[in-house]
Amino acid sequence: MEKITSRNNPKIKYACSLKNARETAFVLAEGLRLCRDAAENGIAISTCFLTEKMYQSGECAAILEASQASFLIEQSVSEKLAETKNPQGIFCICQKPQLSCEIDSSGKYLLLEQVRDPGNFGTMVRTAEAFGLSGILACDCCDAFSAKAMRASMGAVFRFPVIEIEQEEAFLRDIIGKGMNLYCAVVESAAADVGTLARQQGIITAVGNEANGLSRETLALGTPVTIHMAGRAESFNVSQAATVIMYEMAK
Amino acid sequence: MEKITSRNNPKIKYACSLKNARETAFVLAEGLRLCRDAAENGIAISTCFLTEKMYQSGECAAILEASQASFLIEQSVSEKLAETKNPQGIFCICQKPQLSCEIDSSGKYLLLEQVRDPGNFGTMVRTAEAFGLSGILACDCCDAFSAKAMRASMGAVFRFPVIEIEQEEAFLRDIIGKGMNLYCAVVESAAADVGTLARQQGIITAVGNEANGLSRETLALGTPVTIHMAGRAESFNVSQAATVIMYEMAK
Repeated sequence: MEKITSRNNPKIKYACSLKNARETAFVLAEGLRLCRDAAENGIAISTCFLTEKMYQSGECAAILEASQASFLIEQSVSEKLAETKNPQGIFCICQKPQLSCEIDSSGKYLLLEQVRDPGNFGTMVRTAEAFGLSGILACDCCDAFSAKAMRASMGAVFRFPVIEIEQEEAFLRDIIGKGMNLYCAVVESAAADVGTLARQQGIITAVGNEANGLSRETLALGTPVTIHMAGRAESFNVSQAATVIMYEMAK
Repeated sequence: MEKITSRNNPKIKYACSLKNARETAFVLAEGLRLCRDAAENGIAISTCFLTEKMYQSGECAAILEASQASFLIEQSVSEKLAETKNPQGIFCICQKPQLSCEIDSSGKYLLLEQVRDPGNFGTMVRTAEAFGLSGILACDCCDAFSAKAMRASMGAVFRFPVIEIEQEEAFLRDIIGKGMNLYCAVVESAAADVGTLARQQGIITAVGNEANGLSRETLALGTPVTIHMAGRAESFNVSQAATVIMYEMAK
């Protein structure tokens, strides 16, 4: 296997350029778990970079087999590619999955509006997959394929439909016209309990930005629901709220 | 206000020594949000360190007022004190809260067994507070006052009872003898649904280690409950599972 020793190698530069690029068809996955998830889910891996130590560990067979090309890298190159402080020493250039963008009007979706934190975003994708939802609808959110979002999703972004919605209001009007029910998660004790939305078919529940909640336009289109809590509601994180909502949706 | 310019100043060395020390009565809190939480919750703050820029921001009045002593620090000193990559530039040495360790046998508790990830731990404390539970029972877990756990808890560790249990099995036998119900969260489709534990008084639900779940000893003492899911259960994080459990407990 060829060895790359320079941090300025064009292949390394290209790989690094994928780290903060949203509009690309490829993404740089870091770490054994994520690279393995990509390989196991049939994601096309164009290149794998790994340190000698990682190669010797014998943990990478499936990843190397799935990769079109593989290169050994020096520790210093690994540190350049890494987003984490103590990289494991394995990186894959993966093609973003081409998942269906079709909305099933009898399905169950979580809509995320302006969710900015990639950790929250990734966690919600992971939880949506766990509950067997139909997909995540992402409206003006952070990049689903940023390093942090991929890590928090535990690879779920490679398997689970995350559908980007460009024109949110028009989309919602259209889908409501097709008979879907839109619920809006709010922090408001007068709103109906989140338990009331359970067991319906064709539902979208919208969850808003970490600080500001949902937009007025979205709130005007849906039925508000809330999680009634005895304690300190302001201590509730958006991804925890979404967990309860998806739990009720999935019932 | 006196200015500390050296990273080797004894006060700075002492503050740094608190970062990884579990058995101390004091803890180093970092960041505006956490320091403010400490100040607002009547936590004794022995020392506040802050950069000139942070001081000028005018955001620190309440923190400075609550601190027995305050020092300006150079940027390089701030970086030494910090656990984050881009520190905001404010740090407080806080006394750990002296919360009651009494168990209320009609209360509702989440028991955490060998939870190792401080992010998960802190998130669960935060969520337990949101749902108005009586407390967290921590058995052989990570440090509730590590920098990461404090951050993830959003300051809830300063307000909400986290009770460390030394002899878990003896404790559980005792508390069951006093009439409390113990439920054990498991990943097992044959177990009763988590919904069945709702609306009871005097309950403890135990959640286990991220990788291995609950110990055999604990499982032998309680009733297994599970979260039935249509999707990919292995995608479910311990803190998301605990959110659903607490939601049902709090109903």
